[in-house]
Amino acid sequence: MFELAELRHPIVQAPMAGGPSTPELAVAVCEAGGLGFLAAGYKRAEAVRDEIETVRAATGRPFGVNVFVPTQEPADPAVVARYMERLKREAARLGAELGSPKFDDDDWERKLELLCAERPAVASFTFGCPSAETVERLRRADVAVWVTVTNRSEAVQASEAGADALVVQGTEAGGHRGGFADDERAAGLGLLAVLRLVAGAVSVPLIATGGIVDGAAVAAALCAGASAAQIGTALMLAPEAGTTAAQRAVLRDPIPTGLTRAFTGRLARGMLNRFQREHSADAPVAYPEVHHVTSPLRAAARRSGESDAFNLWAGQAHELAPELPAAAIVERFAADANATLRAVAARFAELADILQHISDYP
Amino acid sequence: MFELAELRHPIVQAPMAGGPSTPELAVAVCEAGGLGFLAAGYKRAEAVRDEIETVRAATGRPFGVNVFVPTQEPADPAVVARYMERLKREAARLGAELGSPKFDDDDWERKLELLCAERPAVASFTFGCPSAETVERLRRADVAVWVTVTNRSEAVQASEAGADALVVQGTEAGGHRGGFADDERAAGLGLLAVLRLVAGAVSVPLIATGGIVDGAAVAAALCAGASAAQIGTALMLAPEAGTTAAQRAVLRDPIPTGLTRAFTGRLARGMLNRFQREHSADAPVAYPEVHHVTSPLRAAARRSGESDAFNLWAGQAHELAPELPAAAIVERFAADANATLRAVAARFAELADILQHISDYP
Repeated sequence: MFELAELRHPIVQAPMAGGPSTPELAVAVCEAGGLGFLAAGYKRAEAVRDEIETVRAATGRPFGVNVFVPTQEPADPAVVARYMERLKREAARLGAELGSPKFDDDDWERKLELLCAERPAVASFTFGCPSAETVERLRRADVAVWVTVTNRSEAVQASEAGADALVVQGTEAGGHRGGFADDERAAGLGLLAVLRLVAGAVSVPLIATGGIVDGAAVAAALCAGASAAQIGTALMLAPEAGTTAAQRAVLRDPIPTGLTRAFTGRLARGMLNRFQREHSADAPVAYPEVHHVTSPLRAAARRSGESDAFNLWAGQAHELAPELPAAAIVERFAADANATLRAVAARFAELADILQHISDYP
Repeated sequence: MFELAELRHPIVQAPMAGGPSTPELAVAVCEAGGLGFLAAGYKRAEAVRDEIETVRAATGRPFGVNVFVPTQEPADPAVVARYMERLKREAARLGAELGSPKFDDDDWERKLELLCAERPAVASFTFGCPSAETVERLRRADVAVWVTVTNRSEAVQASEAGADALVVQGTEAGGHRGGFADDERAAGLGLLAVLRLVAGAVSVPLIATGGIVDGAAVAAALCAGASAAQIGTALMLAPEAGTTAAQRAVLRDPIPTGLTRAFTGRLARGMLNRFQREHSADAPVAYPEVHHVTSPLRAAARRSGESDAFNLWAGQAHELAPELPAAAIVERFAADANATLRAVAARFAELADILQHISDYP
């Protein structure tokens, strides 16, 4: 079974479904000594299989695949219809049609079968806790199971379901909140706070994610109890990432981010743009229905480069995203984390030694 | 002029206006080798002078005083009146009268005069940036000026005004958001993210605050670029703190926190209770008017121990608050931070040495 200690660097690539994640990005991170990830969300199992094959053709190193746990219950159709009514003028403006508000499971069962057959090093889960049976099924296939959690009770539940490690997501993270329920707690805890809360409650390794966009932040996450840091926004300007040109152009701008359900019906963090400002207050909890409704709109806006009309998922520290190849980012973050830890530990030890010296001479 | 390097431990007590801060708590933190703080907010200058005298009678060590920068413009009276209408049933239930929605400056000028005369080691500011003239006036009196900031642009502004250091507040923090404007950005950034953003933009020392409730979190904050950690919630169960019995009884319970304007008209983080759940959505941006309106209600609820009807300010990691005297908390956090830094640095260095070893034998 894969363990984090096998990695050269304690750095994991965040799976970024919907565009930024590519097999090329995963390969580059793996080859640099981190753990690359494929994002299976929104894709059919066949497409995921193709991506796994692409990665395996390019690297022999371990990598992970992230899967969305299906929503339990459809949303109230009337609530979705009301939000669709509101979006009609957006559709007209973009010359697109609203999508159908279908409720689906994102090809869940076939993706599980694929993972058991293909056996990537890690299967990570977002939007819910896989059952103990699902966890055991993957582990029997030698696939380590990671679960994304955003608070202490989710961490305990995932640990009890048999997860090998937990991805602990702070509110700083870009994209969807990865916790189990899209409720009043979904906005989440700051990364430092949630790491300390979770570290005291479970004994499995933790992978910290949310707002980590340099080596000093990696060092901080390790001090706070993580065994590795998962970076997403930090890789969005890498040439290997599938980030749109429109988002690349603004990613380092000082634009605040906010949490919104406007694009998908599930809370996610994006750089504030016109669409997000205008529709966030009215967007319902209705994932994946709203995701399917807005999908043609977002595609049209991306095609025409209108960054005011599609989701600009990004973490809170997006202004610091480096413009470097993925391998250089992984290597730089690891080297800087190491240097930070040495420097801060030495400064603190020096202080402690002085104090010792003082107390020796009373 | 005071410098953080004078402290035995890189730990600063957060000023917690409205109850938890006491001269006894400040003294205990100072004597343990941290920097104690008095909270001048909501108090008349004379009361602050008395507290300064109490502290000076008990310790010769440096300490700080925190002051609220006045709101620039009164809120729309109609908006405040509408919210007051809503609160009438709360008042009736508690057998109290709503307070008068007065707009005041919290005795600003007289507090500045007091600080220039009394010369504490540090004057810290919350809710705004003091003018360059105010900063210079205090600095001429040998008072170091710290400004609370919550994002990069506030940090740049405070640095340009001449601040000696910045208190960088993450969204995890309990109590009021300390930034300059109560707008869409007030909810704020996670501590790690805001530290990294600010560290890259200014050259003054940073004090990290928000959700730091153990030594590992102190170590993390130092790695992320802080020169010291400011702890508030972590001290709320200390016997020296003025925390109400009702809040002490629930502080370690797994109750989520949320941001609200329900109690004061300014965004603040508290443990979710009935009052906060029922009124947050309707509470206007109207500080200090709403603070004065709810003041008698909160006092009545505190007297009767009704923790569902007054503000339970607390940071996101409140469940970890230690039940120890303040001095023991400061000493334990410093020792644990040091141990964490040593352990993580050693683990990382070991990994780096192994890699070096591997690359030496190709």
